Amino acid sequence: MKPLNDTFLKALMRQKCDYTPLWLMRQAGRYLAEYNATRAKAGSFLNLAHSPSMACEVTLQPVDRFGLDAAILFSDILTVPDAMGLGLSFVAGEGPVFAKPVQSEEAVNALYVPDPNKELKYVMDAVSEIRRALNNRIPLIGFSGSPFTLACYMVEGGSSKDFRTIKTMMYTRPDLLHRILEVNAQSVAAYLNAQIEAGAQAVQIFDTWGGALADRDFQTFSLAYTKRVVELLHREYDGEKIPVIVFTKGGDTWIEDIASCGADAVGVDWTSNLTRVRQRVGDRVALQGNMDPMVLFGSEELIRAQARKVIDDFGPVGNGGHVFNLGHGINQFTPPEAVSILVDEVHNYSRSKH
Amino acid sequence: MKPLNDTFLKALMRQKCDYTPLWLMRQAGRYLAEYNATRAKAGSFLNLAHSPSMACEVTLQPVDRFGLDAAILFSDILTVPDAMGLGLSFVAGEGPVFAKPVQSEEAVNALYVPDPNKELKYVMDAVSEIRRALNNRIPLIGFSGSPFTLACYMVEGGSSKDFRTIKTMMYTRPDLLHRILEVNAQSVAAYLNAQIEAGAQAVQIFDTWGGALADRDFQTFSLAYTKRVVELLHREYDGEKIPVIVFTKGGDTWIEDIASCGADAVGVDWTSNLTRVRQRVGDRVALQGNMDPMVLFGSEELIRAQARKVIDDFGPVGNGGHVFNLGHGINQFTPPEAVSILVDEVHNYSRSKH
Repeated sequence: MKPLNDTFLKALMRQKCDYTPLWLMRQAGRYLAEYNATRAKAGSFLNLAHSPSMACEVTLQPVDRFGLDAAILFSDILTVPDAMGLGLSFVAGEGPVFAKPVQSEEAVNALYVPDPNKELKYVMDAVSEIRRALNNRIPLIGFSGSPFTLACYMVEGGSSKDFRTIKTMMYTRPDLLHRILEVNAQSVAAYLNAQIEAGAQAVQIFDTWGGALADRDFQTFSLAYTKRVVELLHREYDGEKIPVIVFTKGGDTWIEDIASCGADAVGVDWTSNLTRVRQRVGDRVALQGNMDPMVLFGSEELIRAQARKVIDDFGPVGNGGHVFNLGHGINQFTPPEAVSILVDEVHNYSRSKH
Repeated sequence: MKPLNDTFLKALMRQKCDYTPLWLMRQAGRYLAEYNATRAKAGSFLNLAHSPSMACEVTLQPVDRFGLDAAILFSDILTVPDAMGLGLSFVAGEGPVFAKPVQSEEAVNALYVPDPNKELKYVMDAVSEIRRALNNRIPLIGFSGSPFTLACYMVEGGSSKDFRTIKTMMYTRPDLLHRILEVNAQSVAAYLNAQIEAGAQAVQIFDTWGGALADRDFQTFSLAYTKRVVELLHREYDGEKIPVIVFTKGGDTWIEDIASCGADAVGVDWTSNLTRVRQRVGDRVALQGNMDPMVLFGSEELIRAQARKVIDDFGPVGNGGHVFNLGHGINQFTPPEAVSILVDEVHNYSRSKH
């Protein structure tokens, strides 16, 4: 069943819209007092992510507050490797840590594709609960990290500045990394398909760390496996098209390659210029992005001007499709009023472009 | 006086060379046991940077060990803001910290252009001492951070992940940031000119953080001020041309703009493809780069293959100029033998391209 407001889905499929829809990466997050209240109730980030009812609650908070055009499942990017038994925890000030990083041939051989309806059932329950709570107002986006981005955390054992461990594996034992990526691609595809079956109406693959790779390594170790996931996804479910968005932070240099991966839409970060990206990739994919999240720390006038600049850079929509977003996740210190201003400007100003 | 081996200078000026010269960003550093010994003797990084004789010692270590084609002044990127009286120190695990970050109108108004031959005399003494010690074997590169990169540290008060403080200033009080950048441009130009007068035979401007800016903001707040520095530099001194290199990490999307800033050469990071960069900018500038520093953790065979790939990507030198380098500073855990292999391969394999 189509949502009452399906502008987001239409933009992704490059169909005629009345205005440019928007949502914000990390829209359910710490910049919202109501999120912090729910998180406090949960006790920890992982408890919050593991509870379908609380995940549902925070997913709807920004939707209710701002009138956004899509909701995105609240979850953690590392649910899949956690379901592989690698032992995820969060250490204050350090971010995610895996108790069992994948750094040996034995560890690689022990990897398996988790059953999304067993080990990750709490995510599917959250998707179903959110769909019920949304009551078809707007579409729900499911998501996953890309195979390479998940591998970064799995091999490094957590966050990294220079990706020395995974790159050393890539340059000394590429066979091991390829095996990890193949398992990840199967796992991500199964995970996203289960989200679609549970009710996700579009999915986004976050390739947060692909941009740290050298030219050619990106294509071989990141994009090839993202493409593999895209090929395995349900592109239609229950009679509805399921659009797929691929977002590679720092991917501007490879944007033609990314636009050829089979996805319906490509997310671009704030360093890109949407006019130039559109010149390079044409209208074969919709584009999503790309305001600098830090613009939201500016004055009302500045926020409105910068929002118009992004819309003007995309230009008349014509046969294209534009979903407004930030070029990266919203910052935790963002004043929520800035988001209200942004939504108002995007919704109003963009009408002239459609 | 021309150095005995002036291949590096000739490549920067796109003159005929016998082979592709190379040096490595951060070539004097913690991956070398002899560097760590000198640093231990100095007691701290800042003591080492402040001592002309010890700075000279570490500058020559990689040159003597590997037979590189250029030496680069060992110094800290934050000497200029330190000379402005902002109170630089290094906190273990946190990196550089300024006691007096520049976050108010008063602090901005108090900024001044330091006299490089007074407050920064220790750097000029190091340059002179290195030139004497090099005895004209190979050229010496002077360097500075770009006005924007220095401003990042000055406004943030140290390192930053998201540049929230400086971007908030940029979006709320652009006038203040422009004033900082103007002082920085004047300071960097005076600092580099003094290095040239003291003996630097080429200079590199490191725009380490320009790539964190949105399109248009990069041009306005970073590149415009780098260009201002380039315009103010001695381009010839004591009868010799002084080539200027500009390196913007993450600058691929703006490479045409960067190549138009007036520099002789443009450094590119490992995400770029040199074939495509050369197609975009032509041969109006030399290119420097761009192997992923992490390749040096691979096998001998892999290092040689990847070095050849970079040289092949640049292609036949023709009317162009190529200086081989890494796409970023060498990692502190790099095995020094890997550098010997790299130097050997670049020097030998590249002969067929000239």
